[in-house]
Amino acid sequence: MEETGLSSSSSPSSVSRIPCPSPGGDCHQAFPELQNDTFLRAAWGEATDYTPVWCMRQAGRYLTEFLATRAGQDFFLTCRSPETCCELTLQALGMQVTMVPGKGPTFPSPLRAEKDLDRLQAPVDVDKELGYVFQAITLTRHQLAGRVPLIGFSGAPWTLMSYMVEGGGSNTMAQAKRWLYQWPKASHRLLGLLTDVLVPYLVGQVAAGAQALQVFESHAGHLGPELFSEFALPYIRDVAKRVKAGLQEVGLAPVPLIIFAKDGHYALEELAQAGYEVVGIDWKVNPALARKRVGKSVTLQGNLDPCALYASKEKIGQCVEEMLEAFGPQRHIANLGHGIYPDMDPAHIGAFVEAVHRHSRRLRNK
Amino acid sequence: MEETGLSSSSSPSSVSRIPCPSPGGDCHQAFPELQNDTFLRAAWGEATDYTPVWCMRQAGRYLTEFLATRAGQDFFLTCRSPETCCELTLQALGMQVTMVPGKGPTFPSPLRAEKDLDRLQAPVDVDKELGYVFQAITLTRHQLAGRVPLIGFSGAPWTLMSYMVEGGGSNTMAQAKRWLYQWPKASHRLLGLLTDVLVPYLVGQVAAGAQALQVFESHAGHLGPELFSEFALPYIRDVAKRVKAGLQEVGLAPVPLIIFAKDGHYALEELAQAGYEVVGIDWKVNPALARKRVGKSVTLQGNLDPCALYASKEKIGQCVEEMLEAFGPQRHIANLGHGIYPDMDPAHIGAFVEAVHRHSRRLRNK
Repeated sequence: MEETGLSSSSSPSSVSRIPCPSPGGDCHQAFPELQNDTFLRAAWGEATDYTPVWCMRQAGRYLTEFLATRAGQDFFLTCRSPETCCELTLQALGMQVTMVPGKGPTFPSPLRAEKDLDRLQAPVDVDKELGYVFQAITLTRHQLAGRVPLIGFSGAPWTLMSYMVEGGGSNTMAQAKRWLYQWPKASHRLLGLLTDVLVPYLVGQVAAGAQALQVFESHAGHLGPELFSEFALPYIRDVAKRVKAGLQEVGLAPVPLIIFAKDGHYALEELAQAGYEVVGIDWKVNPALARKRVGKSVTLQGNLDPCALYASKEKIGQCVEEMLEAFGPQRHIANLGHGIYPDMDPAHIGAFVEAVHRHSRRLRNK
Repeated sequence: MEETGLSSSSSPSSVSRIPCPSPGGDCHQAFPELQNDTFLRAAWGEATDYTPVWCMRQAGRYLTEFLATRAGQDFFLTCRSPETCCELTLQALGMQVTMVPGKGPTFPSPLRAEKDLDRLQAPVDVDKELGYVFQAITLTRHQLAGRVPLIGFSGAPWTLMSYMVEGGGSNTMAQAKRWLYQWPKASHRLLGLLTDVLVPYLVGQVAAGAQALQVFESHAGHLGPELFSEFALPYIRDVAKRVKAGLQEVGLAPVPLIIFAKDGHYALEELAQAGYEVVGIDWKVNPALARKRVGKSVTLQGNLDPCALYASKEKIGQCVEEMLEAFGPQRHIANLGHGIYPDMDPAHIGAFVEAVHRHSRRLRNK
């Protein structure tokens, strides 16, 4: 369903201007037909024959090796890390970003006071600033040749804000949280400004070929219920609502939206009501308890500990089996709660994927 | 009650050999009488007139300034950080430790394989290796002059293990978790060995003058329910059981034990049954839900977001009021879920302490 082409003539907004990699016009109609919609059907809450599975990469080393394996042929794979997403979005706002190896994106001139907001570029022309991302998405969609769906990404407003204020990673996010406590108005101004960029960025990704969207609130674990309710959740909701409206406005079919608030265990109920079809949970949350808390209205995604892939293949199989039984056979997308670590043996990623497929079929025949 | 002196003649084990700072014998009988046992009574689950409060320091700058304020006179204060505790314990095992400013303890030769366990010093003679800690505790107890009780500390086995394997801080603790998944037997050997050091270390702290003990599982947030049950909880339980037995064995009165597993929200029920009188919770856990989950058998400690101290004094007062109402008036020790950050205004720490005292008295008169 989500592979429905884009009728570019019906796009009144900026997203109609995305570059078309195939000469002579309506490139999106030319996207190869999707041959495996298991992930998308699970995301929409439809029954599937087995549990779909995908992972984020953290670094690139293992990718080609893994794709050469059998498991790699039937695997939902993304080609960008959430850190990269944050970097790109913030560059569009005029923030200078440098990638420091082993440290992720670093901002040499982080936001230090409300007046620093004035140096941000707003409103952002996402096609001009991020058109190359849309081109990459379109090319990737073509290269996938319909084997699996393509997932677009973005950091959520609070996570982006924390990068901008901290200037890089932080154990405590104390400077970003200081903003929330000391300058709530300025914080809301910044979060609103980030939301205004994210909406056309995500809509543009779908126009370019993304068949689902995941929004990462990677730094939810630094907030608590109160800060999250005030400074994260309203923007997470707003993104979903406005992206859905934006897709409709430009004549694009809806795509499933995924929200993953890492370490946001305290807000599961609220996240399940935030307008996303899928809620990601990390490996610190018991899947059966999570299902009890969120009800039946959403698909859950997760939640193998990425370090479990260090275990033997037999042990990985056991962990997967326990995970699948805890989630139940339907409305589940198997996933790690974090990127794959660069020192991970590709054969173990294969064991994970195969175990999900095998055990989830068995679970359905019980 | 916990200010009961030590009858050193009844101490058959190594703890009887702790150095005595006052010449001529039974120094512990000479400890000044405790004038404020509110904290200890709350820890034991007894009713108190107001809610006691204490904080950990993260760095030292503000301390003298704060102690000069009125709030500082009636404040339960510890003089060491958990990082320092870990450092000392691991040095006792023969690990070389260096303190890197801004990074905490760093181990130039971390454990990389099971054979590295052979280079650890075991069994450890804690009096020989850590006698200076005991001396510092005794001196501090004398210097406190009975104003407030003195709390001893240690990292829990998993947290200590993660430092030893990672060699320092880590965002993912992936190397330490790799041990748990790949080498479960070696991991249990190491965790057992650490428990064997912790027990006499904690008993020795009480013998030296500590009137309560807090065990930090600072890195619980990297585990999930399964790993925690297998590699953290059994040792946390074992520490409590053996410390209690050890105190009895050397004729020391029991002291309340506190367990604080940061980000261990998923294991609250188990922690409440682990043999500790007090369970600490961080600011990501709703206090009313926590109380519902743990029942009435333990005192809860927590849980103001340390960054809330960046807010205005009025806002700090509001946050404290909400927190106290959520915990209820009794069986609660107010606390931050983390150390005080070095850039914190001492006057705001004072506002926190005063707000706890003021609102908790008001709450009791409602």
